[in-house]
Amino acid sequence: MRAEIITIGDELLIGQVVDTNSAWMAERLNEAGITLHQITSVHDDREHILTAIDEALSRADIVFTTGGLGPTKDDITKNVLCEYFHTSLVENVQVREHIYALYKERPEAINRLTATQWLVPESATILTNRVGSAPIMVFEKYLGVQEFRSAEEFKSQKSKYLIALPGVPHEMKIAMTEQVLPYIGLKMQVDRIEKGDIIHRTILLSGVPESKLAILIEDWEAALPASIHLAYLPKDGMIRLRLSSYGESSKEDIQAQIDTLLPLIGDKVLSVSDPSDFSDMSDLSVLAGQLLKQRGVTIATAESCTGGRLAAALNAQSGASAYYMGSVVAYDNTVKTNVLGVSQETLNTFGAVSEYTVREMAEGVRALMHTDFAIATSGIAGPLGGTEDKPVGTVWIAWATADGTVAECFHFGAAREREQITMRAVTAALVRLIRILNAGKYHVEA
Amino acid sequence: MRAEIITIGDELLIGQVVDTNSAWMAERLNEAGITLHQITSVHDDREHILTAIDEALSRADIVFTTGGLGPTKDDITKNVLCEYFHTSLVENVQVREHIYALYKERPEAINRLTATQWLVPESATILTNRVGSAPIMVFEKYLGVQEFRSAEEFKSQKSKYLIALPGVPHEMKIAMTEQVLPYIGLKMQVDRIEKGDIIHRTILLSGVPESKLAILIEDWEAALPASIHLAYLPKDGMIRLRLSSYGESSKEDIQAQIDTLLPLIGDKVLSVSDPSDFSDMSDLSVLAGQLLKQRGVTIATAESCTGGRLAAALNAQSGASAYYMGSVVAYDNTVKTNVLGVSQETLNTFGAVSEYTVREMAEGVRALMHTDFAIATSGIAGPLGGTEDKPVGTVWIAWATADGTVAECFHFGAAREREQITMRAVTAALVRLIRILNAGKYHVEA
Repeated sequence: MRAEIITIGDELLIGQVVDTNSAWMAERLNEAGITLHQITSVHDDREHILTAIDEALSRADIVFTTGGLGPTKDDITKNVLCEYFHTSLVENVQVREHIYALYKERPEAINRLTATQWLVPESATILTNRVGSAPIMVFEKYLGVQEFRSAEEFKSQKSKYLIALPGVPHEMKIAMTEQVLPYIGLKMQVDRIEKGDIIHRTILLSGVPESKLAILIEDWEAALPASIHLAYLPKDGMIRLRLSSYGESSKEDIQAQIDTLLPLIGDKVLSVSDPSDFSDMSDLSVLAGQLLKQRGVTIATAESCTGGRLAAALNAQSGASAYYMGSVVAYDNTVKTNVLGVSQETLNTFGAVSEYTVREMAEGVRALMHTDFAIATSGIAGPLGGTEDKPVGTVWIAWATADGTVAECFHFGAAREREQITMRAVTAALVRLIRILNAGKYHVEA
Repeated sequence: MRAEIITIGDELLIGQVVDTNSAWMAERLNEAGITLHQITSVHDDREHILTAIDEALSRADIVFTTGGLGPTKDDITKNVLCEYFHTSLVENVQVREHIYALYKERPEAINRLTATQWLVPESATILTNRVGSAPIMVFEKYLGVQEFRSAEEFKSQKSKYLIALPGVPHEMKIAMTEQVLPYIGLKMQVDRIEKGDIIHRTILLSGVPESKLAILIEDWEAALPASIHLAYLPKDGMIRLRLSSYGESSKEDIQAQIDTLLPLIGDKVLSVSDPSDFSDMSDLSVLAGQLLKQRGVTIATAESCTGGRLAAALNAQSGASAYYMGSVVAYDNTVKTNVLGVSQETLNTFGAVSEYTVREMAEGVRALMHTDFAIATSGIAGPLGGTEDKPVGTVWIAWATADGTVAECFHFGAAREREQITMRAVTAALVRLIRILNAGKYHVEA
């Protein structure tokens, strides 16, 4: 089964909003055995939306739209859908009652604009938007009127569907999880659509250039069956190697390929993961959290340039309180001395961005919070503050345990943006932590 | 001038990567007076890419592609572009020398796969990718062979362009800024394309439902000239109201409309901003930073449930060291008592998620870091840890100054995800901070 997503809203096309909905939906659709063929972002413009819907329905079995369902004048998706599906708006009592219940503690949110939310297209099936006022609408496009070249072709044709979802991520996610995916599952059963298992496995690596890795595994790659696709995804100094199958290979087939691959790249591998721990940055934080929990060790951080982002990565997972104790963000030097106990002499002699300072920061927070591990960062995130000796992008990181402390200097490049430099530093801090924990040791090696 | 973006890569359509490139590019294009018409995400698939390019070039004057330019087998964009533009690959000495210079300290990154990177399409203009190995390629599609209905139409027709960019955000951004935008500017001059000024202004509001706001400003909205578009963007409990003009209204026209609007909604407005402080979360952190700097006051945070994210928001801007001193992430209760001085009795009597605990946390970190302001957060981010009294989504926040401390309890909803609850808490903390600073006061009012 093939799907497409149309995201609707000027805000996407002027860069005011990053579309995070599509990636989340793509992952859920893949889990349900549905291939996402294309994502198209269009303006809040009648003709543009009509064209995009028509084209998407010509290619896909099911089309999702997000956005444009609010009560204000700039939101036109519902009316355009009525036009496309030759239907008109009628009052829906269930939706009205739902909206009254939703806003029972905020009566000022019920007014004549809100009332437009319980007008729904007559021909659409309405699913409940538990946490919002815009109803989820399912439209069916019957293909029975088309001419088919053969009986086989006729039998293989089904209705096509369009499902209109709100653009607010929180509402979209709950609607997809609670209403839309179960609804599609049922439809797939009724229409007897075979569910092809889409499988993705990702191997996270660091410490090798992409081209070198490709040469290293060239023979293995050449021997891969056509049903298993391989992709290289470099990011933040790491590479994700992804194996995908779209219904033609089993989990066991893919595992067998991974088993053959690992001996070739063993020392560079940080983890092999299922799609559930897919999303960008969370790979490393999920992995670090799992390992800390397994090993039963606690951790704290002392951060200057990463400014709380390393802490956030370590407590991003539910249950983090089992291993993550806390952090000191020591942005100002007085916090480094007063709270973490970094000596004034160290700061005067070597500066805040130095091996000795990060060592003292790591050891200081480890003592302060009584943890097994501690990580400290200090660097120049820029764009200001760089010098010839210590250009923007210079970051010192220290890892401390009861057995001692190790520190490393990174150069993430003056051309990078502030946010990228800090995220690279978080990545580097986690990568080495994971290597230490993977080695089954609690102490660090220089 | 009308542009489209085609993002190429299976990772986008299986949800492994969120497309942040397009929003960034959209903003830059708008600044350059170029309207982005559509964004299309397609698979690493020859036919899919060919079709997408052809369709996009039929609608737009300039098409950008991102992704698929790596040296590994899964990246096919360059070869597909050769096919589409009827050209073939030739060795390019400048690109080769550039790549050797780029990797001079990492010789293992130069190998026979890297060597494919200096093979470039013969008919393309090559722009330098300063920080990566994939060359930026500009293709020109001559329209001279088409039939035109009139001399006017012929005169108005120009060549169309396709510019292929790498998908790695860091490389794409530097290429766009340093090479592509200046190149387009030059082409627009040569082709005498008039640059229409695209203007966006955003008003950030909180404390009013979207539908009520729309009714409040209904008459003003009805009187807006057709050349000024209004959009409502609700997010994280706030509303962004955006006024946009695509080359037909001046900055002064838009300012005049804002001047008429503000008296109607004055008490709900947090800020009126230019597009430069557009991007999602950064609105509030930019604004808070500016106000703290203007007022010459310093700030620290003590965080439990927000886990460093409030700190990160406060130090996200360059120059943050002028006002942001540091933070204590007190995840574990021992950190709350030992580092922040929260009394054990308070924790025992009221619990970690309580008014008294956040008050003591805020006052504790303010004393510890000698700041004018301090903010503390403690809540249940879930999905575990909720109780009947304090369900998931309950967050206490305190704001402390020399004049006293105020605390407020928020309920962000048990249905929300962990990350959303923490980000809502960061938002709420910043919103009240901004209100206090906007009022020109350093002390807080209950």
